[in-house]
Amino acid sequence: MSTRVNNMDSATKEDYKPQDGPIEIKNRHIAEMDEDVLYHIALGTRSHDLKDMFRDIKFVCFGGSPSRMKKFAFFMVDQLKFKLPAGQTLEDIAHGSDRYVLYKVGPVLSVSHGMGIPSLSIIFHEIVKLLHHAGSSGVTFFRIGTSGGLGMVPGSVVITDEAVDGILRPYMELATMGMMIHLPSFLDQDIVQELYSLAEKNDHFQTIVGKTMCTHDFYEGQARLDGAFCDYTKEDKMMFLRRIHEKGVRNIEMESLCFASYCHRANIRGAVICVALLDRLEGDQISTPHDIMEDWQSRPQILVARYIRKKLGIH
Amino acid sequence: MSTRVNNMDSATKEDYKPQDGPIEIKNRHIAEMDEDVLYHIALGTRSHDLKDMFRDIKFVCFGGSPSRMKKFAFFMVDQLKFKLPAGQTLEDIAHGSDRYVLYKVGPVLSVSHGMGIPSLSIIFHEIVKLLHHAGSSGVTFFRIGTSGGLGMVPGSVVITDEAVDGILRPYMELATMGMMIHLPSFLDQDIVQELYSLAEKNDHFQTIVGKTMCTHDFYEGQARLDGAFCDYTKEDKMMFLRRIHEKGVRNIEMESLCFASYCHRANIRGAVICVALLDRLEGDQISTPHDIMEDWQSRPQILVARYIRKKLGIH
Repeated sequence: MSTRVNNMDSATKEDYKPQDGPIEIKNRHIAEMDEDVLYHIALGTRSHDLKDMFRDIKFVCFGGSPSRMKKFAFFMVDQLKFKLPAGQTLEDIAHGSDRYVLYKVGPVLSVSHGMGIPSLSIIFHEIVKLLHHAGSSGVTFFRIGTSGGLGMVPGSVVITDEAVDGILRPYMELATMGMMIHLPSFLDQDIVQELYSLAEKNDHFQTIVGKTMCTHDFYEGQARLDGAFCDYTKEDKMMFLRRIHEKGVRNIEMESLCFASYCHRANIRGAVICVALLDRLEGDQISTPHDIMEDWQSRPQILVARYIRKKLGIH
Repeated sequence: MSTRVNNMDSATKEDYKPQDGPIEIKNRHIAEMDEDVLYHIALGTRSHDLKDMFRDIKFVCFGGSPSRMKKFAFFMVDQLKFKLPAGQTLEDIAHGSDRYVLYKVGPVLSVSHGMGIPSLSIIFHEIVKLLHHAGSSGVTFFRIGTSGGLGMVPGSVVITDEAVDGILRPYMELATMGMMIHLPSFLDQDIVQELYSLAEKNDHFQTIVGKTMCTHDFYEGQARLDGAFCDYTKEDKMMFLRRIHEKGVRNIEMESLCFASYCHRANIRGAVICVALLDRLEGDQISTPHDIMEDWQSRPQILVARYIRKKLGIH
């Protein structure tokens, strides 16, 4: 099956149901290679026994910041009641590279992806290849991130039901071999609802479901007034943000479109859960104190931990 | 002057001469702000005396990897004969954030930008605002990077005379306020020639001048056969790479287009100097031993150090 979808009528959001099964590589060249060096995480099929290391992986949690993803790994140690032997701790498996971090807690991988689609794209390719070489199956991917919210209390959590680009297109454009290819960004709606059902009434934060706008730029791409370049007015900005809010956009970040479209291509169940660090209808700058920010950033992690515990039968 | 250039006839590569002078912000909102928090480098106009810290900056060197840019800072300590007092060392000025690193050696800033245009875009905005708040003037920007070469010995250095996107367009598309804006990626040709003139006959590496293709993706965007997705053949790949080589492309990386177009918009003299880690006409995988790679990655740094020493009159 070709993964080049130019005719958007050939599939709909409702049709899309990722299947459990082994992680497959949509690239027949990989099987012909003597060695596959996963350059940006400093692992490889000859230098490492990837089956032994990663075969049991069932959940991959991606997030932008390396230190946040390290903290998430230790949070999972607690949440999964994972027993680290006396005198041992987690280490960054990708320590041979300074591009990304990679921590493993039983069946959970915690991976940093840096900022923006290109940075996420590289690690996504390499994690899919890693899990394929390892023989993993039935794996679910999460992006646990931060974002700017629209019309909500800062600290709220948004589960993405549709990722759109900076001009509201529900696909990612990819320039490849001299052509522009469109990759639809369908997300599995079942996991959206299941994650939403795990938000509890007495949570100290609000959880909502909505569209996520994904941009290539933090400043002008998100209609901020505080960048080094800005040739629009506050009125232009507010008109744009109100308009996308009316169209169902609830938060803006920089990776969901690629995450969604690559999960769709790879037939991997994937979900995007982000906390909103501010309400963009109220301002642009992020100046919340560090400790409050830390609490907010743990909120999407709490929902994902509930999902993983439920699937693993840990109460 | 509007920075929205849709009519490419309004300027040509030859016309473009950046002027020395104070770093200006093309955003009238900045002057109206009580405080400017440079969120991704954990600095701000209230929390820090940016004038005191950064006013003397004349050169900003950007590179992808945080550890490489730390090494470059210490290389500049040596190159500039910069005297660190006994018992003192350089520290990462952006240590309050784990997104980027920022080192200062006299008039030189060494900054990591992560991978891809969005990640570079964020730090570029914040460094320009930083230097504007600091009152810096006559500043030159460099991107010192790694790339895949075309038709050259691995380890060769390419000075970019023109940055183009994945389908050879010499501008960056930016989705902003519901529109697609085109930002021309003109680079200052004088600095290209001056850097080239600093390559020496008995250098242990080759230096060339050529076009640089900038992609949003490391695998399919660069016609690699070793990604998680690939729906083309080796023949397709070779045809594409030979064709762009014929059109003058000498290397492929992931940031030059944004770097060039933002320098152009900000009226800052900028240059892109990358080492080629492999010849893409020969292969896709990067499997060169670590110590050789380290040597190669220092080569663009050597050229930039010569330029800076020359401008500072250090022999």
